[in-house]
Amino acid sequence: MKRAYDTEILSVGTELLLGHVTNTDARDISEMLSKIGINVKYHTVVGDNPQRVRDCVAVAKQRADIIITTGGLGPTCDDLTKQLLAESFGLKLVENEAEMKSLYDYIAPGRKITENNFLQAMLPEGCTVFHNNCGTAPGCAFEADGKTVIMLPGPPKECNAMLRESVIPYLRKLSDEQIVSHSLRIFGISESRIDDMFASEMNAMTNPTMAPYAKECDCLLQVTAKAKSEAEGEAMVRPVMEHVMDVVGENVYGVDVESIEEAVMALLKKAPLTFSLAESCTGGEVAKRFTDLAGASEFFMGGAVTYTNAVKAKLLGIDRDFIEENNAVSYPVAKAMAEGIRRELGTDVGIGITGLAGPDGDGVHEVGDVFVSLAAKEGTFVRCLHLGKVRTRSFIRRMAGNHAYDMLRRYMTGLDVIAGYDK
Amino acid sequence: MKRAYDTEILSVGTELLLGHVTNTDARDISEMLSKIGINVKYHTVVGDNPQRVRDCVAVAKQRADIIITTGGLGPTCDDLTKQLLAESFGLKLVENEAEMKSLYDYIAPGRKITENNFLQAMLPEGCTVFHNNCGTAPGCAFEADGKTVIMLPGPPKECNAMLRESVIPYLRKLSDEQIVSHSLRIFGISESRIDDMFASEMNAMTNPTMAPYAKECDCLLQVTAKAKSEAEGEAMVRPVMEHVMDVVGENVYGVDVESIEEAVMALLKKAPLTFSLAESCTGGEVAKRFTDLAGASEFFMGGAVTYTNAVKAKLLGIDRDFIEENNAVSYPVAKAMAEGIRRELGTDVGIGITGLAGPDGDGVHEVGDVFVSLAAKEGTFVRCLHLGKVRTRSFIRRMAGNHAYDMLRRYMTGLDVIAGYDK
Repeated sequence: MKRAYDTEILSVGTELLLGHVTNTDARDISEMLSKIGINVKYHTVVGDNPQRVRDCVAVAKQRADIIITTGGLGPTCDDLTKQLLAESFGLKLVENEAEMKSLYDYIAPGRKITENNFLQAMLPEGCTVFHNNCGTAPGCAFEADGKTVIMLPGPPKECNAMLRESVIPYLRKLSDEQIVSHSLRIFGISESRIDDMFASEMNAMTNPTMAPYAKECDCLLQVTAKAKSEAEGEAMVRPVMEHVMDVVGENVYGVDVESIEEAVMALLKKAPLTFSLAESCTGGEVAKRFTDLAGASEFFMGGAVTYTNAVKAKLLGIDRDFIEENNAVSYPVAKAMAEGIRRELGTDVGIGITGLAGPDGDGVHEVGDVFVSLAAKEGTFVRCLHLGKVRTRSFIRRMAGNHAYDMLRRYMTGLDVIAGYDK
Repeated sequence: MKRAYDTEILSVGTELLLGHVTNTDARDISEMLSKIGINVKYHTVVGDNPQRVRDCVAVAKQRADIIITTGGLGPTCDDLTKQLLAESFGLKLVENEAEMKSLYDYIAPGRKITENNFLQAMLPEGCTVFHNNCGTAPGCAFEADGKTVIMLPGPPKECNAMLRESVIPYLRKLSDEQIVSHSLRIFGISESRIDDMFASEMNAMTNPTMAPYAKECDCLLQVTAKAKSEAEGEAMVRPVMEHVMDVVGENVYGVDVESIEEAVMALLKKAPLTFSLAESCTGGEVAKRFTDLAGASEFFMGGAVTYTNAVKAKLLGIDRDFIEENNAVSYPVAKAMAEGIRRELGTDVGIGITGLAGPDGDGVHEVGDVFVSLAAKEGTFVRCLHLGKVRTRSFIRRMAGNHAYDMLRRYMTGLDVIAGYDK
């Protein structure tokens, strides 16, 4: 590291001070910056008020080397961040031709273009422009008065994409230390059990380090090294990761992936097969998660969302009496759903999910009782899960989907499909 | 209002600056305070570093009347908030007998009691103690140097409970003003067009006020009044809301709702009908969104996710040659999908969605070309959308879903199903 690069994130937006939205931008920026070795020292939130924004910029200039703003770049009269930051650093706003053209292309043809729209293409003179691939307002960065100023749009998707695409590469140039960090994603065992497994090792480590984090329905171990070069960093983290793999083994579903469906996609690309889904309690969410990924159509042929017995009978070719005799939430019906969708759509694998996501029970099962089934040429496998108690509908649905993808992953890698998770 | 009571929320915790957790405490506090007429002017986050916390307290003393801290009240050596705040206001920490007893009762029997545990019962002299009903660390409030200081625990559950149980009643005594605020959710016209429509009025308003906010795929107008009573506040916002309804009219899909599917659910509860979905490019997301809502099974019977022509033919009963002649992404196929799922599942309404969510095109259409169709006894209605250009796959999918629910909403309320949005 050439120097400390203390960073302050200044979020501008009255909606944050009214509690209408949560400041996830500050979290995302902090998380990504910490991974490249830049220390965030302060977050500040201020409303859309010119004088208060000016005052906060003055405070930030005193205590930070890098000031990152979020929000206030849009087309409305509340959006003042660029004007105020440029003013605070004695810069003019000038029209950026490329962004002006991009705005024209985006808004035209046939739509009314307002004066305010074009304010978005006015940027501080001499700045580096960050094109917004998810919205209209560009971000930018400039150096002035010995500070680095970066301005990002407020909507979380836009902010996050710009961070990954433009800001991290821009900031990496400021540092001569490389941070190498990998996350081992783990499904089926809890963060506290991971913590127990590695507590003494983790306490003894300084560089590289290892830290467990709980996500909503799984957890991860982050292994991080600081080194002079990327190669050196990779060499430092490799033995730690291999050790974790030895201990946690088949519960590690992927490295540096965002989700278990992404890990499944990577496996499918290596060893293609087709699959289909029959969803009851998850209501389309399991299909949605896979089809969020580009290229899904190569492996996922389709599915049925069957919210009634009649629809289960109709779309999956299951005898209606059979469903009613066994109860729609049951081992035999889950099995028949996976087999039915596999047969109807002619896929290599069929997956069936039926259960109670709540809030109400059915008098037979408890909320959170879910059956997840995988049918393939080798036979049909069913997990009987109890995900309920204090859990929410959204947790139960998401967790059921994780089990479906975990079963598919284990099927594809030759592991026992039913085993492999804490009951 | 006796006086302004500008408030700053100072959150203490390095985990916030590393992006490991999101600052939901600041959002919760802001939301609750705004409802009792206290203005939150700043949020600040600082790490567990004594000097930086002192500096932030000094800044807060200059610009706020009420300082609310979160975090740093626990039993570890990082937990310094009470010591530092007491020191900043020249107060001593003294042992609180009731809290000491409560700690004994809570931690004993059988567990090792550390010295640090008891630091939690040391509180600023003369303070009002807020007992923690969800954890061990008490919160407190004191008045000094003309400021009100309130200290709350960091864990969101503890913070939230203490807010409701103790802090709001404590602060109500400072204010004799009520805030009434409603949000009008709008689909089909952009935030910048809303801004144009109302810019001069908004600038002229002081109480009540009106402000537009952009959400990912729609926008909202927030109308807020400060008044002596809730009834008076409601009376102040009502004519403003009626005026907005007159101008924006049928594009307002709901008041104080979170999403367009929630608005549709409210309509269905008043005038029940059944519907089904045939999804291609949205891949189950439109079904997932409705089934996120408890009670969905009363109105939504099921759906088909049809990612290939063969599956469209099989599950929707559409002739495969017809699909291939017309192209799967086309007006006739969208129409046939809506009609097919309605017929197959026997629902009042069938909705069909086919399009290109990207990232790759099909050589015929551009990414973002989507056809959304609604079939009912009155006939079949199709919207031809161009959602692409710089937009992401996830935006295109979400926006297609919003159009589907907007068409259903318009069908149910007797409006022109196809019209009503900016092209």
